[in-house]
Amino acid sequence: MFHILVLHGPNLNLLGVREPDVYGSCTLASINAAMEKLAQELTVQVESKQSNLEGELVTWIQEARGRFDGLVINPAAYTHTSIAIRDAISAVALPTVEVHLSNVYGRETFRQQSFIAGVALGQIAGFGVNSYVLAIRALIEHLQTSMHS
Amino acid sequence: MFHILVLHGPNLNLLGVREPDVYGSCTLASINAAMEKLAQELTVQVESKQSNLEGELVTWIQEARGRFDGLVINPAAYTHTSIAIRDAISAVALPTVEVHLSNVYGRETFRQQSFIAGVALGQIAGFGVNSYVLAIRALIEHLQTSMHS
Amino acid sequence: MFHILVLHGPNLNLLGVREPDVYGSCTLASINAAMEKLAQELTVQVESKQSNLEGELVTWIQEARGRFDGLVINPAAYTHTSIAIRDAISAVALPTVEVHLSNVYGRETFRQQSFIAGVALGQIAGFGVNSYVLAIRALIEHLQTSMHS
Amino acid sequence: MFHILVLHGPNLNLLGVREPDVYGSCTLASINAAMEKLAQELTVQVESKQSNLEGELVTWIQEARGRFDGLVINPAAYTHTSIAIRDAISAVALPTVEVHLSNVYGRETFRQQSFIAGVALGQIAGFGVNSYVLAIRALIEHLQTSMHS
Amino acid sequence: MFHILVLHGPNLNLLGVREPDVYGSCTLASINAAMEKLAQELTVQVESKQSNLEGELVTWIQEARGRFDGLVINPAAYTHTSIAIRDAISAVALPTVEVHLSNVYGRETFRQQSFIAGVALGQIAGFGVNSYVLAIRALIEHLQTSMHS
Amino acid sequence: MFHILVLHGPNLNLLGVREPDVYGSCTLASINAAMEKLAQELTVQVESKQSNLEGELVTWIQEARGRFDGLVINPAAYTHTSIAIRDAISAVALPTVEVHLSNVYGRETFRQQSFIAGVALGQIAGFGVNSYVLAIRALIEHLQTSMHS
Amino acid sequence: MFHILVLHGPNLNLLGVREPDVYGSCTLASINAAMEKLAQELTVQVESKQSNLEGELVTWIQEARGRFDGLVINPAAYTHTSIAIRDAISAVALPTVEVHLSNVYGRETFRQQSFIAGVALGQIAGFGVNSYVLAIRALIEHLQTSMHS
Amino acid sequence: MFHILVLHGPNLNLLGVREPDVYGSCTLASINAAMEKLAQELTVQVESKQSNLEGELVTWIQEARGRFDGLVINPAAYTHTSIAIRDAISAVALPTVEVHLSNVYGRETFRQQSFIAGVALGQIAGFGVNSYVLAIRALIEHLQTSMHS
Amino acid sequence: MFHILVLHGPNLNLLGVREPDVYGSCTLASINAAMEKLAQELTVQVESKQSNLEGELVTWIQEARGRFDGLVINPAAYTHTSIAIRDAISAVALPTVEVHLSNVYGRETFRQQSFIAGVALGQIAGFGVNSYVLAIRALIEHLQTSMHS
Amino acid sequence: MFHILVLHGPNLNLLGVREPDVYGSCTLASINAAMEKLAQELTVQVESKQSNLEGELVTWIQEARGRFDGLVINPAAYTHTSIAIRDAISAVALPTVEVHLSNVYGRETFRQQSFIAGVALGQIAGFGVNSYVLAIRALIEHLQTSMHS
Amino acid sequence: MFHILVLHGPNLNLLGVREPDVYGSCTLASINAAMEKLAQELTVQVESKQSNLEGELVTWIQEARGRFDGLVINPAAYTHTSIAIRDAISAVALPTVEVHLSNVYGRETFRQQSFIAGVALGQIAGFGVNSYVLAIRALIEHLQTSMHS
Amino acid sequence: MFHILVLHGPNLNLLGVREPDVYGSCTLASINAAMEKLAQELTVQVESKQSNLEGELVTWIQEARGRFDGLVINPAAYTHTSIAIRDAISAVALPTVEVHLSNVYGRETFRQQSFIAGVALGQIAGFGVNSYVLAIRALIEHLQTSMHS
Repeated sequence: MFHILVLHGPNLNLLGVREPDVYGSCTLASINAAMEKLAQELTVQVESKQSNLEGELVTWIQEARGRFDGLVINPAAYTHTSIAIRDAISAVALPTVEVHLSNVYGRETFRQQSFIAGVALGQIAGFGVNSYVLAIRALIEHLQTSMHS
Repeated sequence: MFHILVLHGPNLNLLGVREPDVYGSCTLASINAAMEKLAQELTVQVESKQSNLEGELVTWIQEARGRFDGLVINPAAYTHTSIAIRDAISAVALPTVEVHLSNVYGRETFRQQSFIAGVALGQIAGFGVNSYVLAIRALIEHLQTSMHS
Repeated sequence: MFHILVLHGPNLNLLGVREPDVYGSCTLASINAAMEKLAQELTVQVESKQSNLEGELVTWIQEARGRFDGLVINPAAYTHTSIAIRDAISAVALPTVEVHLSNVYGRETFRQQSFIAGVALGQIAGFGVNSYVLAIRALIEHLQTSMHS
Repeated sequence: MFHILVLHGPNLNLLGVREPDVYGSCTLASINAAMEKLAQELTVQVESKQSNLEGELVTWIQEARGRFDGLVINPAAYTHTSIAIRDAISAVALPTVEVHLSNVYGRETFRQQSFIAGVALGQIAGFGVNSYVLAIRALIEHLQTSMHS
Repeated sequence: MFHILVLHGPNLNLLGVREPDVYGSCTLASINAAMEKLAQELTVQVESKQSNLEGELVTWIQEARGRFDGLVINPAAYTHTSIAIRDAISAVALPTVEVHLSNVYGRETFRQQSFIAGVALGQIAGFGVNSYVLAIRALIEHLQTSMHS
Repeated sequence: MFHILVLHGPNLNLLGVREPDVYGSCTLASINAAMEKLAQELTVQVESKQSNLEGELVTWIQEARGRFDGLVINPAAYTHTSIAIRDAISAVALPTVEVHLSNVYGRETFRQQSFIAGVALGQIAGFGVNSYVLAIRALIEHLQTSMHS
Repeated sequence: MFHILVLHGPNLNLLGVREPDVYGSCTLASINAAMEKLAQELTVQVESKQSNLEGELVTWIQEARGRFDGLVINPAAYTHTSIAIRDAISAVALPTVEVHLSNVYGRETFRQQSFIAGVALGQIAGFGVNSYVLAIRALIEHLQTSMHS
Repeated sequence: MFHILVLHGPNLNLLGVREPDVYGSCTLASINAAMEKLAQELTVQVESKQSNLEGELVTWIQEARGRFDGLVINPAAYTHTSIAIRDAISAVALPTVEVHLSNVYGRETFRQQSFIAGVALGQIAGFGVNSYVLAIRALIEHLQTSMHS
Repeated sequence: MFHILVLHGPNLNLLGVREPDVYGSCTLASINAAMEKLAQELTVQVESKQSNLEGELVTWIQEARGRFDGLVINPAAYTHTSIAIRDAISAVALPTVEVHLSNVYGRETFRQQSFIAGVALGQIAGFGVNSYVLAIRALIEHLQTSMHS
Repeated sequence: MFHILVLHGPNLNLLGVREPDVYGSCTLASINAAMEKLAQELTVQVESKQSNLEGELVTWIQEARGRFDGLVINPAAYTHTSIAIRDAISAVALPTVEVHLSNVYGRETFRQQSFIAGVALGQIAGFGVNSYVLAIRALIEHLQTSMHS
Repeated sequence: MFHILVLHGPNLNLLGVREPDVYGSCTLASINAAMEKLAQELTVQVESKQSNLEGELVTWIQEARGRFDGLVINPAAYTHTSIAIRDAISAVALPTVEVHLSNVYGRETFRQQSFIAGVALGQIAGFGVNSYVLAIRALIEHLQTSMHS
Repeated sequence: MFHILVLHGPNLNLLGVREPDVYGSCTLASINAAMEKLAQELTVQVESKQSNLEGELVTWIQEARGRFDGLVINPAAYTHTSIAIRDAISAVALPTVEVHLSNVYGRETFRQQSFIAGVALGQIAGFGVNSYVLAIRALIEHLQTSMHS
């Protein structure tokens, strides 16, 4: 059974509140519930945490080494400014899926650069809650393939 | 029952042949088969076509209007150079998922700009064959949600 | 009697359908009719063709040499990406008027560079159908002036 | 009967004198005469003024509000440096056609940016005297269409 | 005996016609004849094709796999805009010599970037017809060396 | 009675100590006192907090929703690097005044970009302690106007 | 008693008329009245002038030397294009507050550079009429502090 | 006997007052006197004028045609922002020497671009009053050489 | 006896684990031990701390004022993104040596800009553990020289 | 009989030693021998020299005037940094072929700009020793053609 | 009596030969003669030297310290590429006039940046031989003024 | 016993003379003496040379192959402009430490790019004479470690 850590970056605790025309009306709780439901179907374990602190996200990624098989991360604003999170992902070398609720490539210029993409397995952006659900699927599929090869 | 058009851009007909260390060893046929299998599961219809010609892809997108409910497209090299494909997607206004086999954001600088992203629903990149399968799921989910809202 | 070739670039066959708030509601047929009407008034001959293929537009421009006296072209998306069309216009050395339905200089940054402008006689942008009609006038006037000088 | 203000920017008073290989040999008087002739044909009224002062052009645009139905402007050098003229056009909200004698997009880099284009109805460039005549036609056509819609 | 495919890009069918001060007065036929003559001397086989279509060039490169030992390509305008041709060359992994009639590095800025150079064996530019003849020599020499090592 | 939250960013706790030739010799305590004095005059309530942690500032902004009527923020170094603080301000949608002690636009290039300005009501920079006092006035005036409209 | 000169740049004479959604509906007269009211309260003298001419603004700044104690200037469009106004402010060395009605940093890119900021005491932007009133306060406070130090 | 027009741009009327550490302590009158003295020595005629208005400088340059043999201009701030003055110099085609009191190439980045240099005979910068005196010499020498060739 | 604070930035706690081909196989403990050994030799005191939080590093730098004589800092990822750490170093005005394990100037472009360098005494990069040991020597030497001058 | 000067730039004396994976294992002597062999075949004279000094290369190019009919130059590192060599080639106006052993356009960004290309007849890059041999052929062919036209 | 060193950079020994349409037909000898003539008039001593070697120019500048009162330098191609010459001028701190025969600011972009200007007293460009003569005058005048102040 | 070559670049022979506020007052002789002293302590051999010629430095680096175990280089101005020195270091493949007296990253923009850093073991900057002494230590340590591994 795979263990997956899901990390939500800054301001994602406000989901449902924050600019609903951009991010949709669902809450972080409902996102976690949707992932939980899929996890049970696929018999994997998912643990979710949110932080507004760049350094705390770094620490959680570090602590995932040896305790989790893969990482799903929505770095939110830190996508575009954090080399520290990038370095943490490189360091622990866990397969990582980058997730975004909105299609960041259709927004402000400064949201079109990702420091994370270069060290991620892949990314999924633009599907709201479903971005996370697809990310869980993508990661499980990757872990199963790796295990058998 | 939803009808989905899947368009493969230039050089994707060489899959399995072309740089297997970057794109993996699976063929276009096996990608189409994987999508077909999921389509049957979800009782949707998927039709796949490949072209090396920018203008032919434009024409196929135009012809999809009224005949398909959504579009999955891997524009390959044209992702970074084709405003014509972008304009075609805008014009037909079909929900469109952009797909990439590799994580384009970790490659050459000129592959890190997408003219398509700005008009797509979202994008999925870096999961090989599975990128397509996830895209079908993402699109169906979107179509179902839109239909009920 | 002057012979003028009018070339419509990619997606212009969708006019009336494609984003009517940007491009207006008239169709390609009505544009051609408006030019035809003026052509009869001015006793010149106008022939119109549309293609989504960059290379086909190149070929048509090449074939215009010796058969037409001037060119009106709306290169649409290829305005911003096609050096091949630019080179074709240079090569045949026919007087060419660049036309745009919308005022491209008030839109996305990537629409503000024209590879065609450097080899065109001039350009007319922003007047919808009337951009074409004015282009026919501009070209005829130029041909008459050249003939008498 | 429509009233149209035509504004000529800096150095256009030297036409016929100034670099005839770039701007042609006709004078400002002959341009005004050509527009006058068309105006009589179309039963509209055209008034022309020239200034070398950016601020005077701004003032004339401001004063056109309520007294003219539309504006034809060749901002000459100020095309590329004047945000003040741009703001004046925005402020009075008169339909405005930007005119250039030469094809500015085929000249020095610093002549390829227009602060005016973003607030103009459209632009006509490269046809010498005829650029103005076509601009009058374009503006009248636009005013007639707007009046009937 | 080596088989070599020579591909001529857009507008090269106009050679002798197109801007003779830049490209010289020889025709495509005379270029092919010059290569044919050298081919007989060196007892290799050369086949030449020209297309204005980016996608057709892509397809021809793909079809060269297994049928030709090397590629000489003058991508003309597509040198500077086509990632699709670059990807095709990478995919078939045939040794490829990039050829230009004129010295592209002494011309407009937009002609100074080559998407092809990064995947070519080498390039030869600026010697008119002779650029092709030298390219055949360069490729044969490379093939002979590779065969013996 | 309006409640206003004043947030001081990193290193502002060192005021009076840190480069007095740039930032003046007054301390954070005296700034807070000056605002307090004005608050009593205008019968509003002002609460001030300082943090060196980007994420803590994000959290405090989030918590201000529903508890405060407006925000005065001197993001200091985070002005130029924090999209997370920008997103927090957008999310809570409280009217926000950006404050700087020094005239940041006359300093190093990297201090001339503000991620905050795009989501703030306005900004006040260059008046030392008085920047804060003026910000309180600006915000109160804005709140009173909004309430009556 | 301090004497303050307030200079309004190009198009500000159209206030109330010009794009009310950006600049609000108040007129220049009402702005001057608001400053006048505060001036009486603070027993200072304020004189206001508006010009569309860059050079006239330069001359007025020059003439302020020895006759005024400080300057409030809204350079409007000239903020982004006038080095001459910048040099005039440097030359007379009067304390100067830069004022903007709207938050220029949230608008077009070309409005995000100020040639004036580098020589101003500080700036206040985004508060409509109140920007001016706050500027008067800021300047008086600065003059009083300077006088006593 | 040659007639030379000397034009002083914006803020040069403040010389001796304006930032003496950058521009020196001499006045415009003393500069004119120094040129006058040399003019008498060389039996040429020099006329000097100063304006803060870009458009007035344009007009004076235009009026110099046929009345003066050459032009010495210190465009001051307009050096870096005025295409209109550049165009006026091109139009009248008088030999023109660009003068600067300070070494502009050792100052702010925005002072290191000259729109005037491209159309001037040459430039002399960094020698204070003497820059003008040398410019008179340079221009006379040029006129004498041209006359005899 | 000098007191030196050594600060290790984000992810340095993973040393020995994180990408050993880039950062070597030694641990943070062994780095601290190596510095400790030198400290005893030179009879100075060294205290080391690590944090993943930008703001905590800022606070520790602030607290070093008056308690330490100098600072050795490896800001790791924050080297390239933190103006807050830069400002903290400026504010406390302690002599600071910037240290990097790898030669950052030979890595990704985004690692080639240091916000810290501008306020540091100097930097030492590329010598693994020994970078720190050399930094201690450099700082002690500097402190001794300063004390005697 | 033509006389050709071959100049080898800095570090080419180390060939066979220097990074054999990039530049191959042949030595400068073997390159000169290969050219010598072809020279005898074509009955031309070739003289080769190498220098690490930019200025010495400049002097040799100058001295070639009147003594040689053409130039083959591999400017190595100076390709990208030497305007002096460019100016020397312009000044002597000898037909010049630029040669590179490796395909410079597929290497570091700073190797992708050539100051020499703009004044060379053409360039040949990427064929190792054979680049030189082809350059001799290209130059002879050019000289023969020029002689007969 | 002042001693002045005149340094001529690379390729200036070819004057009269090298591109006479750009640099005129006079030789280095005639330039030196013209300066010699003025030197006798003004009773100063001028010594001229030319080198193609950047490092030799550096050495000559160094050796000028204590032996010459000022420097006139035409760094030619090194103007745009040599920081070493700039540093040498800074180091010896002799008043230095930068000279160019042609108006470099009207030529290729790469000739529009001068590393020398930032450390020179001033520059004189565009007057052919006379640029040098004016430079001698400018330097003498400066030395006389400095001596008396 | 290790042999180390120390190369001093252009203008370093002027040390103690050249801008003492930037580079300190010690001479090259005293730097060499300080290194000599350490060399004796560590029983290694150090040889120092200085040149103003880029090409001579290249030659000395080449000659160091086989005769020295490592290189310490202060390329001074050539740090920022010499690809030839970079290539020489790559070619000889000796471990190389880049040294700077001042902290180059806190100076002019053009001093913040190093062509050398990419091929050096590491760099030490900002500690005056001590930069060299630390470099000797760093290199010895590296050589000892390499020898034992």
